[in-house]
Amino acid sequence: MNGKRGFASDNNAGVHPRVMEALAAANTGHVPAYGDDPVTRRAAALLRGQFGDEAEVFFVFGGTGANVAALQALLRPFQAVVCAETAHVNVDECGAPEKFTGCKLLAVKTEDGKLTPRLIEPLLGRLGDEHHVQPRLVSVSQPTELGTVYTVAELSALAEFAHARGLLLHVDGARLANAAAHLGATLRELTAGAGVDVLCFGGTKNGMMYGEAVVFFDRRLAQGFEFVRKQATQLPSKMRFVAAQFEALLAGDLWLRNAEHSNRMARLLARELEAAQGVRLARPVESNAVFVSLPPRCLEELRRRYVFYLWEADARLMCSFDTTEEDVRELASAVRAVVG
Amino acid sequence: MNGKRGFASDNNAGVHPRVMEALAAANTGHVPAYGDDPVTRRAAALLRGQFGDEAEVFFVFGGTGANVAALQALLRPFQAVVCAETAHVNVDECGAPEKFTGCKLLAVKTEDGKLTPRLIEPLLGRLGDEHHVQPRLVSVSQPTELGTVYTVAELSALAEFAHARGLLLHVDGARLANAAAHLGATLRELTAGAGVDVLCFGGTKNGMMYGEAVVFFDRRLAQGFEFVRKQATQLPSKMRFVAAQFEALLAGDLWLRNAEHSNRMARLLARELEAAQGVRLARPVESNAVFVSLPPRCLEELRRRYVFYLWEADARLMCSFDTTEEDVRELASAVRAVVG
Amino acid sequence: MNGKRGFASDNNAGVHPRVMEALAAANTGHVPAYGDDPVTRRAAALLRGQFGDEAEVFFVFGGTGANVAALQALLRPFQAVVCAETAHVNVDECGAPEKFTGCKLLAVKTEDGKLTPRLIEPLLGRLGDEHHVQPRLVSVSQPTELGTVYTVAELSALAEFAHARGLLLHVDGARLANAAAHLGATLRELTAGAGVDVLCFGGTKNGMMYGEAVVFFDRRLAQGFEFVRKQATQLPSKMRFVAAQFEALLAGDLWLRNAEHSNRMARLLARELEAAQGVRLARPVESNAVFVSLPPRCLEELRRRYVFYLWEADARLMCSFDTTEEDVRELASAVRAVVG
Amino acid sequence: MNGKRGFASDNNAGVHPRVMEALAAANTGHVPAYGDDPVTRRAAALLRGQFGDEAEVFFVFGGTGANVAALQALLRPFQAVVCAETAHVNVDECGAPEKFTGCKLLAVKTEDGKLTPRLIEPLLGRLGDEHHVQPRLVSVSQPTELGTVYTVAELSALAEFAHARGLLLHVDGARLANAAAHLGATLRELTAGAGVDVLCFGGTKNGMMYGEAVVFFDRRLAQGFEFVRKQATQLPSKMRFVAAQFEALLAGDLWLRNAEHSNRMARLLARELEAAQGVRLARPVESNAVFVSLPPRCLEELRRRYVFYLWEADARLMCSFDTTEEDVRELASAVRAVVG
Repeated sequence: MNGKRGFASDNNAGVHPRVMEALAAANTGHVPAYGDDPVTRRAAALLRGQFGDEAEVFFVFGGTGANVAALQALLRPFQAVVCAETAHVNVDECGAPEKFTGCKLLAVKTEDGKLTPRLIEPLLGRLGDEHHVQPRLVSVSQPTELGTVYTVAELSALAEFAHARGLLLHVDGARLANAAAHLGATLRELTAGAGVDVLCFGGTKNGMMYGEAVVFFDRRLAQGFEFVRKQATQLPSKMRFVAAQFEALLAGDLWLRNAEHSNRMARLLARELEAAQGVRLARPVESNAVFVSLPPRCLEELRRRYVFYLWEADARLMCSFDTTEEDVRELASAVRAVVG
Repeated sequence: MNGKRGFASDNNAGVHPRVMEALAAANTGHVPAYGDDPVTRRAAALLRGQFGDEAEVFFVFGGTGANVAALQALLRPFQAVVCAETAHVNVDECGAPEKFTGCKLLAVKTEDGKLTPRLIEPLLGRLGDEHHVQPRLVSVSQPTELGTVYTVAELSALAEFAHARGLLLHVDGARLANAAAHLGATLRELTAGAGVDVLCFGGTKNGMMYGEAVVFFDRRLAQGFEFVRKQATQLPSKMRFVAAQFEALLAGDLWLRNAEHSNRMARLLARELEAAQGVRLARPVESNAVFVSLPPRCLEELRRRYVFYLWEADARLMCSFDTTEEDVRELASAVRAVVG
Repeated sequence: MNGKRGFASDNNAGVHPRVMEALAAANTGHVPAYGDDPVTRRAAALLRGQFGDEAEVFFVFGGTGANVAALQALLRPFQAVVCAETAHVNVDECGAPEKFTGCKLLAVKTEDGKLTPRLIEPLLGRLGDEHHVQPRLVSVSQPTELGTVYTVAELSALAEFAHARGLLLHVDGARLANAAAHLGATLRELTAGAGVDVLCFGGTKNGMMYGEAVVFFDRRLAQGFEFVRKQATQLPSKMRFVAAQFEALLAGDLWLRNAEHSNRMARLLARELEAAQGVRLARPVESNAVFVSLPPRCLEELRRRYVFYLWEADARLMCSFDTTEEDVRELASAVRAVVG
Repeated sequence: MNGKRGFASDNNAGVHPRVMEALAAANTGHVPAYGDDPVTRRAAALLRGQFGDEAEVFFVFGGTGANVAALQALLRPFQAVVCAETAHVNVDECGAPEKFTGCKLLAVKTEDGKLTPRLIEPLLGRLGDEHHVQPRLVSVSQPTELGTVYTVAELSALAEFAHARGLLLHVDGARLANAAAHLGATLRELTAGAGVDVLCFGGTKNGMMYGEAVVFFDRRLAQGFEFVRKQATQLPSKMRFVAAQFEALLAGDLWLRNAEHSNRMARLLARELEAAQGVRLARPVESNAVFVSLPPRCLEELRRRYVFYLWEADARLMCSFDTTEEDVRELASAVRAVVG
């Protein structure tokens, strides 16, 4: 295995050494399966420390599973999810949300991946009409799939707007740490403090091997969620190993330092690229993603040397917890070479 | 964390040291996510080495997910699954099979957890009747949840019976290694060789941290399964870490040695307990499970010292890859003490 | 079309002339679709007159649709339905309840098609266990598919038992009129009065062309049902024609007179057959169904002349609103001829 | 019941007298339920006469049910439906297609409610990508919800485009008769002849009381549909009464004459309104729908006297089989009065 660090995806990265150590350390004999163990209790307590004492925390295997189970917990099948057209739940989960919840997703075109009350309003015109699905939940990705970040004020405005109309606010926080790092906000300010109802808090893209957490900020919404999680095939039997990873991430704010690092690498990459002629940043760089516009011929040439995904016609370059300055400068110089 | 080894569940055990080493060894920089990496290719090749070249192998997060996705791949929602009343899919997956596939499970009372053609036959009386679900798949657990094991001849008879009636045969092999160890049969003899159509091959209960494999023995049945897996929320992004664990299990037949060990511990426990007065083996010991009948008062007393589950009125005692002879003798002596 | 009246099914009968007249009478120009019309309002008011002012009434196309929508309204997918093994929802709806609600049905073997608290109790042993579906609703057919009828006391006992454990009581009343006629009880006594939570009130088997009603006895349970009905494809656009049929059935208690008549024909048939040597009533005759045990050879001979269904080895003979005494005597004499 | 004919919906109209007579005529004693009766056989044969001998015909209760069952027959849950944003399946079925099939609907913005290959092409960019739903079926409404009609050439082009990419073509023909009348095409030319794979053929909006037909043009696609129909709660027990209505519609081409009439009334209405100052036809009039643009103040005034729906800011005026020239002139004069 070559294992060369690249910019294709933060899912291509491996596991942070501290997380790997925590896995080994948790491997000490028998403990009750399915979460009734001390590691799980400690990790849940640490998360409540971040999110507030009233938070209900559930660990699951993966990000799509977290989203699907969270939505299932909150929705009846005739209710609808409002999300951005670019949302992971809409385009990258192979229809898992519809399949499992039975709900329709109402996808909204956005400029920058971010929903606003003004964009949502037109979808609420048929509330009470039995022929039409009933919007019940607004789902946002924080940061968005376009690398942009909602400010706390923007989230609060969305929550207020949603709640005033009887809707809930869900955050797909697969990279929430990056948003927190960008804003300098606490996890609590970004979620419970802003009026978020349920969060899928990602670990895998931030240095974990697998595992995410579903966090409810109102206990009543979590009612029955242990059954939803199991029925959604998202209950890990050897739960302690998910929990141990979260424990490692939360210890000494590793989650934040990882995110600050990948954000910083993204800003560095952006600066390096901006300086190159013929290269244009397609999006503001607010997290660990850099969207770059290159002449098509250059893009093609660059793809011979680097693996990355195209978002429409732009290159999406992702930084990870393990991206180095050297990696960034190497890529930047490759870009300069192809556009030069 | 105390971590004392017990007999409550093989899910309470930790991770085999060789598996843990493999996880660390796989953590070398970046590789493509979602299975397009060399570790996954190697592990799949090793599994095809065991199951036959025509096998199609897919890694997933967990056992319930494996079952649900496998059934979804093979069934239309008006078709039904025939299974034993005691089957994990029937009683321990919180209705996940019904929820995800839409199919009814037709549960059959059995003596020993094992289906037979004679037991299935009466369920086929309404084939072609549009008012009734149409049995399309027979699902067996190997070993069963009662610790019993189908012989290769029994499996072959089931497969032949099923195929003659247009039905498929699914094996929930969460502990298939223990069945292979008990029978001295190869994995291929136990599956493709016996006419099995699809297998869920367990890793977690046999020393892995998480991860199972879905194996199709006819490629046509696997058609579209990559989408089914994703939609079932069972596609691990950092797939290499599931694959690395399977690689470790298959290297030097660790999977078999683990299973032989836990089976041997179960037989030892059975022998020790049989010798005790007032103790009766409730089931034949054919895998790593020992079902023991004790006077109710003794059961209660024993539960003060040991955690285990009751199966009806019997104690279920599970051995693991890490159970030691000392653990067994200590338990046996505790049992003797309570019945003495 | 020959149209000879038989005993195969009350679904084989046509439409009562008064119902047909009502359909014609309702065909007067335009009225709002989907139930916002005077006929629907009148029919709903008449049903509230029967069931109590607090009843919420919704009209649907068919019986399976009524059951499926009613269950969907009350259940989350990890919850389970407890029903008799012989229940229509369990064996004659092609898995529609599982498909639509995602819920498992827990089917109980019964002597006579009737559930009792004692039979249900053993299914409640795993309440709160996340691995197991959670029983939430008891569903009974009144009369049962075996022609037996729950007394008001039996229903009340079931309701009390269910409510004490947080369960709801659903009645599949496809032939509820026949139960009411048998017991001499009002529809209200049989439902709201006995503690029933939701009823599917049948029209089709009692002289209507199509159409059933879902009746909730607690408004909170009906919350959102207009959306459930539409999403379940059970919202008739020209609703007035369903409503007009119910109006006709309720006028002058035609529903009761139809049911009294078919019950009486069943009793007459039973008396005639009991007198024949070699013929045995297999079940008590409490509604419009007669289950008869005949020597196999006779059964076969009889089937050459009459169409009817076998329930296990017994002939099921159904009387309808239009069955005549002459029809009954003709059948009885045919039976006597084959057994003679 | 007032019953005044209006222009709100063709679902507000009643039943054509010839259909009502057919219902009464079919009410002659007993026939087998669920479609095994002579009326159903005759009606199916008449439909095959229209659509071609290879057509497989199934009767169902309603239009949403027909669509949902047809889609369920052809799709696996990870596959997607491509449809116009305005399609009935997308906005007027309360999410029933998603709920029942588990599939995502990919809704396309259109100018006039009509899909084209050019509009569909961009949705096919992620075929084979396991993260994304896989488009498998194109669904068009004929006529569209905006009253526009696909020509046979347009349909053929869509079918050819779809088939070349492994997709199927579904027609929601709730008002197909109006399209046939507009085009002067036979039903066969409009469907099998153009390459359509499955059709939902509407009856209710064209003079029937209830009932639609699902027609497959390739028998292999219909495989198992009798179970799909039942599981979708769309199997009428007294099927002959659905069939009898279709028989009446097909006799003497009543279906066509009804549609020609309502189309003619729509054209008359359009001509009358065009002449009025301040009134503008918002859409071409190609079926029984007239979309009219009025100054907001006039719209409001008109709504005090007439019930109709707004489509965005336009009035949708629907003609029915029973609309008279007098009705049209009365409405036209009312419009002239409010704009005058």
